[in-house]
Amino acid sequence: MTATVPLPVIGVVRTSHSELETTPIQAGLNRAEHGTIDIAAPYLAGLAGLEDFDYAWLLTWLHRPADQAGAPPLQQVPFLLRSQQRLMGIFATRGPRRVNPIGLSLIRLLRVTGQSVVFAGVDVIDGTPVIDLKPYVTRFDRPPGDPRCGWFDQLTISEGTTPARLARDTPSA
Amino acid sequence: MTATVPLPVIGVVRTSHSELETTPIQAGLNRAEHGTIDIAAPYLAGLAGLEDFDYAWLLTWLHRPADQAGAPPLQQVPFLLRSQQRLMGIFATRGPRRVNPIGLSLIRLLRVTGQSVVFAGVDVIDGTPVIDLKPYVTRFDRPPGDPRCGWFDQLTISEGTTPARLARDTPSA
Repeated sequence: MTATVPLPVIGVVRTSHSELETTPIQAGLNRAEHGTIDIAAPYLAGLAGLEDFDYAWLLTWLHRPADQAGAPPLQQVPFLLRSQQRLMGIFATRGPRRVNPIGLSLIRLLRVTGQSVVFAGVDVIDGTPVIDLKPYVTRFDRPPGDPRCGWFDQLTISEGTTPARLARDTPSA
Repeated sequence: MTATVPLPVIGVVRTSHSELETTPIQAGLNRAEHGTIDIAAPYLAGLAGLEDFDYAWLLTWLHRPADQAGAPPLQQVPFLLRSQQRLMGIFATRGPRRVNPIGLSLIRLLRVTGQSVVFAGVDVIDGTPVIDLKPYVTRFDRPPGDPRCGWFDQLTISEGTTPARLARDTPSA
């Protein structure tokens, strides 16, 4: 079943990236880079109180690249498994080509002003639409102990990793 | 700007709750209760690999109650601040009445079968549509240290808390 829903765009992310292949894959791996969320005027009042949090969940709508139109495959080789060419179910990956292309980024809040949110941890291309912002709440969002993280537990992941650097047969930049 | 998008429903959450007011407000506060996600047949292949994770992010589409139709207010009194009647910007809360009614629940995975996902940590009503599942990855999702969590830092939050128990002028159940 597919519902058709209105999806108000509450803002737009401004970053230095224009290509998916050279954009870091996760906010948590790219804290050195800063971005800005320009909040659309009708939604500015919704920011009140966010300045008292150190982190937030940035939910984005990830445009599909034109060459990847149509339904994404349910099993894909994640960027991080390109060298092994291992397939994973899409719900066991964090990749951007999802059934619903919703991105979830843990951003570090640097400054919440009247119009915008400046943050550290960039993993989206410039112009990405924002569909929600939620505060990070340790009590809700941090599991106890050291949970199993599936295939990620077998990897060493470098800061600033991009798909291009993980491409098979492509030398590292 | 409001985009109109197709939103495939990848599954439905089965829980024992039918009313928002008596449903626990956060998965992390209600680990004792188990729920099931029935995955729709076309998306089953997307589960491959999820069984090796202990936690996942459950993204849901939160139906608006009929008596709350229309755009939700940008500043609301969160359930947890009902006794104080303090207003917060919606992007500084985790409440369900959002610009885009997307729920984010950290669920503990108990069993991933061919058709369904059994989990601990219930905070949605029965029949809630699922729009995404993502694995919890500590490297991506756990901020270092002890981040500030705004107004939540001033609260003591009990396990199993529901809106009804937090209602002003309403005795606890």
